[in-house]
Amino acid sequence: MSDLVKKGVDRIEWARSHMAVLAAVRVELVRKKSLKGLRIGMALHTEAKTGVLALTLKEAGAQVRLASCNPLSTDDSVSQALNQQYHLDTYARKNETKEEYYENLNKVLDMKPQIVVDDGADLIFLLHTERKELIEEIIGANEETTTGVNRLKAMAADGKLRFPVIDVNDAHMKHFFDNRYGTGQSTMDGIMNATNLLIAGKKFVVAGYGWCGRGVAMRARGMGARVAVTEVDSVKAVEAHLDGFEVLPMSSAVKGADFVVSATGCKDIISRRHLSSLKDGVVLANAGHFDNEISKVDLEKHSKSIRTAREYVTEYTLKDGRRVCLLAEGRLVNLAAGQGHPVEIMDMSFSIQALCAAHIADRHEKLKPGVHPVPKEIDDKVARLRLATWGIEIDELSAEQQRYLTSWSEGT
Amino acid sequence: MSDLVKKGVDRIEWARSHMAVLAAVRVELVRKKSLKGLRIGMALHTEAKTGVLALTLKEAGAQVRLASCNPLSTDDSVSQALNQQYHLDTYARKNETKEEYYENLNKVLDMKPQIVVDDGADLIFLLHTERKELIEEIIGANEETTTGVNRLKAMAADGKLRFPVIDVNDAHMKHFFDNRYGTGQSTMDGIMNATNLLIAGKKFVVAGYGWCGRGVAMRARGMGARVAVTEVDSVKAVEAHLDGFEVLPMSSAVKGADFVVSATGCKDIISRRHLSSLKDGVVLANAGHFDNEISKVDLEKHSKSIRTAREYVTEYTLKDGRRVCLLAEGRLVNLAAGQGHPVEIMDMSFSIQALCAAHIADRHEKLKPGVHPVPKEIDDKVARLRLATWGIEIDELSAEQQRYLTSWSEGT
Amino acid sequence: MSDLVKKGVDRIEWARSHMAVLAAVRVELVRKKSLKGLRIGMALHTEAKTGVLALTLKEAGAQVRLASCNPLSTDDSVSQALNQQYHLDTYARKNETKEEYYENLNKVLDMKPQIVVDDGADLIFLLHTERKELIEEIIGANEETTTGVNRLKAMAADGKLRFPVIDVNDAHMKHFFDNRYGTGQSTMDGIMNATNLLIAGKKFVVAGYGWCGRGVAMRARGMGARVAVTEVDSVKAVEAHLDGFEVLPMSSAVKGADFVVSATGCKDIISRRHLSSLKDGVVLANAGHFDNEISKVDLEKHSKSIRTAREYVTEYTLKDGRRVCLLAEGRLVNLAAGQGHPVEIMDMSFSIQALCAAHIADRHEKLKPGVHPVPKEIDDKVARLRLATWGIEIDELSAEQQRYLTSWSEGT
Amino acid sequence: MSDLVKKGVDRIEWARSHMAVLAAVRVELVRKKSLKGLRIGMALHTEAKTGVLALTLKEAGAQVRLASCNPLSTDDSVSQALNQQYHLDTYARKNETKEEYYENLNKVLDMKPQIVVDDGADLIFLLHTERKELIEEIIGANEETTTGVNRLKAMAADGKLRFPVIDVNDAHMKHFFDNRYGTGQSTMDGIMNATNLLIAGKKFVVAGYGWCGRGVAMRARGMGARVAVTEVDSVKAVEAHLDGFEVLPMSSAVKGADFVVSATGCKDIISRRHLSSLKDGVVLANAGHFDNEISKVDLEKHSKSIRTAREYVTEYTLKDGRRVCLLAEGRLVNLAAGQGHPVEIMDMSFSIQALCAAHIADRHEKLKPGVHPVPKEIDDKVARLRLATWGIEIDELSAEQQRYLTSWSEGT
Repeated sequence: MSDLVKKGVDRIEWARSHMAVLAAVRVELVRKKSLKGLRIGMALHTEAKTGVLALTLKEAGAQVRLASCNPLSTDDSVSQALNQQYHLDTYARKNETKEEYYENLNKVLDMKPQIVVDDGADLIFLLHTERKELIEEIIGANEETTTGVNRLKAMAADGKLRFPVIDVNDAHMKHFFDNRYGTGQSTMDGIMNATNLLIAGKKFVVAGYGWCGRGVAMRARGMGARVAVTEVDSVKAVEAHLDGFEVLPMSSAVKGADFVVSATGCKDIISRRHLSSLKDGVVLANAGHFDNEISKVDLEKHSKSIRTAREYVTEYTLKDGRRVCLLAEGRLVNLAAGQGHPVEIMDMSFSIQALCAAHIADRHEKLKPGVHPVPKEIDDKVARLRLATWGIEIDELSAEQQRYLTSWSEGT
Repeated sequence: MSDLVKKGVDRIEWARSHMAVLAAVRVELVRKKSLKGLRIGMALHTEAKTGVLALTLKEAGAQVRLASCNPLSTDDSVSQALNQQYHLDTYARKNETKEEYYENLNKVLDMKPQIVVDDGADLIFLLHTERKELIEEIIGANEETTTGVNRLKAMAADGKLRFPVIDVNDAHMKHFFDNRYGTGQSTMDGIMNATNLLIAGKKFVVAGYGWCGRGVAMRARGMGARVAVTEVDSVKAVEAHLDGFEVLPMSSAVKGADFVVSATGCKDIISRRHLSSLKDGVVLANAGHFDNEISKVDLEKHSKSIRTAREYVTEYTLKDGRRVCLLAEGRLVNLAAGQGHPVEIMDMSFSIQALCAAHIADRHEKLKPGVHPVPKEIDDKVARLRLATWGIEIDELSAEQQRYLTSWSEGT
Repeated sequence: MSDLVKKGVDRIEWARSHMAVLAAVRVELVRKKSLKGLRIGMALHTEAKTGVLALTLKEAGAQVRLASCNPLSTDDSVSQALNQQYHLDTYARKNETKEEYYENLNKVLDMKPQIVVDDGADLIFLLHTERKELIEEIIGANEETTTGVNRLKAMAADGKLRFPVIDVNDAHMKHFFDNRYGTGQSTMDGIMNATNLLIAGKKFVVAGYGWCGRGVAMRARGMGARVAVTEVDSVKAVEAHLDGFEVLPMSSAVKGADFVVSATGCKDIISRRHLSSLKDGVVLANAGHFDNEISKVDLEKHSKSIRTAREYVTEYTLKDGRRVCLLAEGRLVNLAAGQGHPVEIMDMSFSIQALCAAHIADRHEKLKPGVHPVPKEIDDKVARLRLATWGIEIDELSAEQQRYLTSWSEGT
Repeated sequence: MSDLVKKGVDRIEWARSHMAVLAAVRVELVRKKSLKGLRIGMALHTEAKTGVLALTLKEAGAQVRLASCNPLSTDDSVSQALNQQYHLDTYARKNETKEEYYENLNKVLDMKPQIVVDDGADLIFLLHTERKELIEEIIGANEETTTGVNRLKAMAADGKLRFPVIDVNDAHMKHFFDNRYGTGQSTMDGIMNATNLLIAGKKFVVAGYGWCGRGVAMRARGMGARVAVTEVDSVKAVEAHLDGFEVLPMSSAVKGADFVVSATGCKDIISRRHLSSLKDGVVLANAGHFDNEISKVDLEKHSKSIRTAREYVTEYTLKDGRRVCLLAEGRLVNLAAGQGHPVEIMDMSFSIQALCAAHIADRHEKLKPGVHPVPKEIDDKVARLRLATWGIEIDELSAEQQRYLTSWSEGT
């Protein structure tokens, strides 16, 4: 076993030993043979926790192929360990070219999957464009991210989505925690790892106050930064303001900013019109799914030189000499420059994934094409398992309290 | 003008000068004559901000009567100022007996209101029981609280609710802010005012991690307490845990607790079964609507003596000599021992109230009996007014970004 | 017993029941007869906790007289209760004129005190100017505040200080906690009580990042404010910056500020040159000892009208119409508009006071005129008593660890 | 240039571009020729920031040799880049054996240094034991750490220290920031990097509430952990309690702990007597200078197997099957599993180092053998440079305010 493969096995086993909820789910799926004989094609960030999910689906009886959902986010040690030690067909390499990236997605599709587990909806998009011939086999899919779900809803609104997709992101046990605590911690981890810069005292701008953005804002503050927030939604802007963050338009926020992190799901958050206001040495990073939140096109167009200043740091020197440091080529900084979400967070998200795959297997005949929410029972089951595996007990309503809550005649 | 009335006028004018959103709403309602000639009966905590709302409705053309929705929460200076200086019929006194309380609600109903603005649903309940004859006149109502809405939904589920009620609590601009930042700040204010005790380092238990509970937990931590949370809902329990609070059942949480604050909307949160575990000198307070979250009946039954130890502090001496300090007789501690929510918070909530009253006036013929959400336009309007009156600008999506968000073909 | 006296008794007894450290000290002083027969003159903020200290000294055998050290900070209920129920000679009234204030200090001095317990050094200053004839009797004094100690050190540097004074403020168990957690909590309490305004989201400026200033800054942040800090010391400025506060000169900080709180021990922190930058409606408050941190002279000179807008709120209308709200006439906002430091904080500070008085009684012959630090044994004793009364145990160094810490030969 | 050397050059240049204070100091030292011709021997953590300091001393005219002060903390890319690209004699490799470690220290001493820059005092200890013949040449030394200073003070107390050593750690601009914000951030970074575990919601125990411990505690809380603190000092224990941390003895604290981080400067913080209480899977890490805070001897003695579970994670399986995960072999987790303190923090500490070296060069004839504090002028200069390089302005006392602060006759 090579050192790299050994490292991958260690990381997978470390993750597995910290994914207690998924372990409980695995026992149930194996017992019920929920996925027996099914072909499942996956495109997720190929790192240790994803490996544990893929192996879980396999152990539950499925045939599984895995590719990465992002050219930069693969952990090569994990990818090789899955192939060589766990015999799980994995098509993923860190720093894939765009061609390799799509080649790998196509290899996953070549297995003629019945269920698709997607992250960003590239796999589902391929199925609806270049690989239409495979759609007949598909009984359903899961989608992991806000970005992917937005795309799918747009497809559904256009009448183009041809099979049921479960919006895994919508589960409380996913977006409350994965998008907030997961993205929050791992984004800070990625930034510190990539830069070794101090966070305390810095002016730190977060674009977007959705679940991801508030996670990043909360943790940046927790590390001592002065945090400002930009938003396009009035209610969220009021909320960010009352949470003690400065709220202002990006064109003002970038002035004097030391760090700008985008977490919006939209594009061109930092673009041409902001460049003239950036401070020399500013660090830009992205925590959203695609690498278009910070416009690399605009950065390139206005730079006189570009170089790698440090691992994960691309330094653009603008025409007037100011330097702009873009982390991880504008791709998900937590995955590309760090190790992705903490294990226990993915334990919850991937337990939802596994149970939703089983739900599709069980109920696909009743599910129409379109985007479906995660059934509440699955959400609640994962919450209960999470508390149980942590050893946390909570209160229960007494019969009397139950009665009280559904009555209306007791007043002042 | 007596000193008391002068104090009330000062408080009302101070509140008015800090309620910029409601001021903008008032201009619109006056211009549109939205409430002209309508009779509006109100039961709200009768303090300065409520005074400004009532006067706003009056200035917009309505006839208005006001009672309190809680026997302890009236600010007498405001009540008298409204009657004597502003000529607004107000029926409210601090420390009302239960008889007086209902007598005052009935005086409001005597005006044969067409719209009812309620808080806790006592007024609406009266209309459906003892004052059924008045229901014909009613075109709709607003309800302010979680507790009241729960009651009304139970009524609706029983097929008993006979007119449309707008769930004002449901507005983002209400429950996101009023229940969290309002209850959070004012509960700490009430507790500090009533006890002069240090918060820092104390073990502080919050029952319930809904919007109110998390506000209280957040502010108690902000004052330096070690905060534990109790819940009955698994997802909220996971959330509280990941927010860094200890989560455990109340029977364990009370051990060693210095403060216990209930914010659940349910009853018997502290009751007989917890008494044996309470620490000598523990402070109990309630931030939920009704005074049954901490069982006074059980406290009385197990005490050998009861005395007022300090203004707002009732000291129960249990049979074994331990002392339990209940604040504000178990009623809303922020209103009974403090001055209620901060002005700017009520500015948002009451702007929703005023606009919903106008909405009922305008649309009541299309609203069926039942509980209705606040129209999104009203929520958004208040958010935009709030930002504008603070002088905060935010970003707007460009046409290109709009297009991107509704497209689905752009991927990796 | 009048209602007011009853209220005072309740407050004193409530405080006493929460001052466990002072209770332990009292037992020791009584047993050792440490203060037997001594005349002690005190000038402290006359509220409940001070009452407990004065009564402790009396119970330990001293004759005691008490005046207030600030014209606004007296709690009349306590003052009257001390006189009428506890027979402790107390000369203090809320809202004293300057004449009354000095008259009361002189009444305390009329007893020919041997020990003086001072707060702000007005009593000691009187002794060195108008009441020089009494100095012969004095064996020593305690001074409670940074401000007073600064004055006394200036006196000592001028060769003018004629008896030993213990710098109580210097004790870790005093300034670490009283100035930080005490001033922090009580200042927020006073501001919320005086204004009923929301803290969350507000721009809150704290002048001075000493122990008091950092307490206020920490708590304002804990209530959700965006906090900026002004300083004159470079090291403290770096510290405030790295603690995540914006650091800038006052002339910039006041722009857009919603609250400005001064905690410097210096004067003219807000003065003429800042007025033109103040935002309409800004709230100014002082947490430093004297009422000259915010220049009332300058405010008056530049205002076209002045009125009481609300209890504790003086509204100055500047010539261009902007309104400036000064709390508690610029005097200590936590005492004048609130109830002063939390009980448990004063328990520590006043235990230091009582033990230092006993120290003077015991050792005065060895103490030279000048400012003396609190003996380390007293500091440590109070810390140990504090932990013990909280029921907190801590680790002890093993003999082996002790040895290790004093050895130097064990390296890598 | 190999990839490794290229990486080292990038890291050094990245650090240099973020060390603005040291850049200003360098200009001054070069201009004044402060270190011209001096031989300086250094033992510091050999990573990028240290490289910039060593190069600064060289550019200021000194001959410099550098070794590592810890067998695990070297960044090989930096070590090789210093040797090959910057021609600075560097003797350091990651994962040195104890023999290599001392061999390297001896190579530094072979240059017959006149000034020694030490971290942990191993170099100074060698000079007083095995290399006594070199002491004559030494004009003075700097020591960077609390641990080293404790050793040196013990030496001085024994009358054994034979040259002046400046206690660099004592500078406000060092221990206020390096020990708190530096250790705080980099310890979290090291732990997250080594484990990929979630911090939020975890029970996180910090041993020691000195400047390092409070930094770790503050940042662990900032990442969402529930933090408990252990102490041996009563005053610090009270402070930790009032900062909202649970304070208890280690024997209780370890129960249920997910993470235990030691930052005490003492040994055997986690030892035999705690093992039976550790939770399965607990993570132990050290942020103190030496690797004896967590007793590896005891862990080994009570384990049935030991393996590397993941890079930087040694898993000890106790005899009853519980697993204990020790990070970075119990050495400084921030340096061994992370990249050490953030650049800007070391900028301040190393500016103190450079100025103190110049101070020794200039004043050594006046400095007696013993431990000396950093001159206040150096502290203040670094603070002023720090603010200036950040572009922060602060207030200055007016002449009138100066006068006021030194007068004593202005009272109430």
